[in-house]
Amino acid sequence: MSLLVTGSIGIDTVKTPFGVSENCLGGSSVYFSMAASLFTPVRFVGVVGSDCPFDLARIFAGRNVDLAGLEVRPQSKTFRWTGLYHNNMDDRTTEALELNVLAEAPPKVPETFKDSEFVFLANTAPALQLELLEQIEEPVFVAADTMNCWIEGHLNDLKTLLKKIDCLIINEDEAGMLAAEHNLIRAAQKILNMGIDAVIIKKGESGSILCHANGGMFILPAYPACDVKDPTGAGDSFAGGFMGYLAQSGNTQFETLKTAIACGTVVASFTIADFSLDGLTAISKNDIDQRLKTLRNVTKF
Amino acid sequence: MSLLVTGSIGIDTVKTPFGVSENCLGGSSVYFSMAASLFTPVRFVGVVGSDCPFDLARIFAGRNVDLAGLEVRPQSKTFRWTGLYHNNMDDRTTEALELNVLAEAPPKVPETFKDSEFVFLANTAPALQLELLEQIEEPVFVAADTMNCWIEGHLNDLKTLLKKIDCLIINEDEAGMLAAEHNLIRAAQKILNMGIDAVIIKKGESGSILCHANGGMFILPAYPACDVKDPTGAGDSFAGGFMGYLAQSGNTQFETLKTAIACGTVVASFTIADFSLDGLTAISKNDIDQRLKTLRNVTKF
Repeated sequence: MSLLVTGSIGIDTVKTPFGVSENCLGGSSVYFSMAASLFTPVRFVGVVGSDCPFDLARIFAGRNVDLAGLEVRPQSKTFRWTGLYHNNMDDRTTEALELNVLAEAPPKVPETFKDSEFVFLANTAPALQLELLEQIEEPVFVAADTMNCWIEGHLNDLKTLLKKIDCLIINEDEAGMLAAEHNLIRAAQKILNMGIDAVIIKKGESGSILCHANGGMFILPAYPACDVKDPTGAGDSFAGGFMGYLAQSGNTQFETLKTAIACGTVVASFTIADFSLDGLTAISKNDIDQRLKTLRNVTKF
Repeated sequence: MSLLVTGSIGIDTVKTPFGVSENCLGGSSVYFSMAASLFTPVRFVGVVGSDCPFDLARIFAGRNVDLAGLEVRPQSKTFRWTGLYHNNMDDRTTEALELNVLAEAPPKVPETFKDSEFVFLANTAPALQLELLEQIEEPVFVAADTMNCWIEGHLNDLKTLLKKIDCLIINEDEAGMLAAEHNLIRAAQKILNMGIDAVIIKKGESGSILCHANGGMFILPAYPACDVKDPTGAGDSFAGGFMGYLAQSGNTQFETLKTAIACGTVVASFTIADFSLDGLTAISKNDIDQRLKTLRNVTKF
C-alpha cells in the first residue's frame, strides 16, 4: 500500500566523539524515506529554501522515492541544525537551530498523494501535523512523532492530534513528560488512554516498547551495534523501517507491528554506524534480513 | 547441584518516592538466597554482629536455605546501609554506610560446604572474594559481582579474580568503567578478553546482556513492571534467580544460561515491587512460571 511522509529536510552539522560532519544532509523526512524505501515506494512531502545544496533526486536515485511533494521556496532558507553528541552517544546538545522555512506554512500535499494509505507525520508543531493530515482523504494507518517543546507548549493541539492518528512514536523522556509518569509501562497505558491504538516508546540503545490498546505488548532490545558514529536520524530511520514494512505488508495486525518494529530497529542500527545518510545508502534488503535474523537469534529464549 | 553464596547481611534504611523503610533486612546474600531458593537449596555464608535484630532461620523458614555458614560475632556490629532512590528509580544515593563486620576478616566456609559446585561471590573486595573462593574445593561454575570502588581501587585483584571465575555479573556503568569503553557490546568483549567465559551486563529497567566467550550473545529486556516501590536487591535477586536455575539444571550450556537470565529477570521484578524482601517472600514457583511465560510472549517476534 502507498506510504507518505511529511517532515523536515535539514542542513546538519553533527559533532560526535568520532568526528565532525559539517553541512551534511539531514532531516526527518530524508532519513525516513531512505529507510522506508528499502521496503516500499515512498511519497515525499517537504520544503527547502533556495540555499539547499542537496540534489534529492540524485540522492534517492534507485530508491523509489516520489519527490512530487518536494517544494523549493526561492525566498526562503533551509532548516539548519547543529548538534553535539556526548560520550555515551545517547545524550545530545543542540548548539544551533535555524527553523527558517519550517517556521513558514507547511508544504502542500500534491493531488496525486492524497489517496495515501499509510502516513507518517514527522515531528513538527501538532497544529501543522493536523493540517497536513487533513489533506489526506482516507488514510488507513497514521503514525506521528512529537517532541518535548510541543508537549510543554502545545499540549491541547497534540491531544487533538492523538485522537486522529493510530500510532505515536516517541522517546522515553517524551513519553514520561506526556504521561506525567516515570514508569514507562504506566506511561504507555496513560498515552493509550488519550485515544490512540498504539504507542511505541523508543529507548535509544536500550530498544523500544510497543503497547497496544488491544492489550498487546512487545519489547525489543536495540540491535547490538559495535559501531556507533552518529545517532542522528536513528529515530526517523526506525520510523521509516517500521512504516515501510507495514505499508509493504498492507496490514496493521499486532504480529505485523512487531516485525515492523524489528525492521525499524535494524534499519536504525545501520543509520548510526556512519555520519549523515552514509550508513543507510549502501545497504540492501539482504543486509536488513541478515540483521533481522541476528536480532531474532540474540533475543530468543 | 549444590549452590553456595557468600555476601552481606545488612540493616537497610531505604527511602523511595513511595515511602521509607527503616532498619529493614537487606544485604546481597539475603536477597540472593531468597531468590535462588525458589529454584534449589542454598548454602549461605555470611556474618553479622550481635546487634542484628533479624532471625534468619525464621525468615528463611520453608525455603531450604542452609545457615551453617552464618556467623554471629559478639564483639562486632552488623553492616548498615541507608539509600535514597530518585524519581526514575534507577539512580540512587548512598546516604550512610557502616561497613562494621564487613571490614573484618570474612566468614569461614563450613567444612560441609566446601564441595559446593555452583558458587556466587557477592560484591565485596576482590581479595576477599578470592580468599572465599580458595576455600571451595572444586567448583563447577563461579559467578561474581563487583562495583565501582573495586574497579577504581583494586583493579589488579579484580583481574586476578576474573581469571579464576566463570561469569561476571555487573551493571552497565561498572562494565563501561572496567573496560574503559562506552559501547556496551565492545565493553563486554573487552571483559571477556580478561579471561572469563561469560559476562552479564545489567541495565536496570532496560534488562541485561549476556556475552559468552564462545561468541554467543543474549539480550533480554526487563520484565515490564508497573509496580516499582524499592529497587534494592534487584541485582542480587537477579543473580539468585540466575544461579538458582543453573544449579537446579546442573549444566552451564549457553541455552541454559539464557533461560537462567530470564529466571533472574523475573525474580528481580518481584523484588522491586515492595520494600525489603516483602516482594519475594510471598511468591511461589508458579508465580515465576507465569511471568516467564509473559516475558517470553512480549519479547517474541
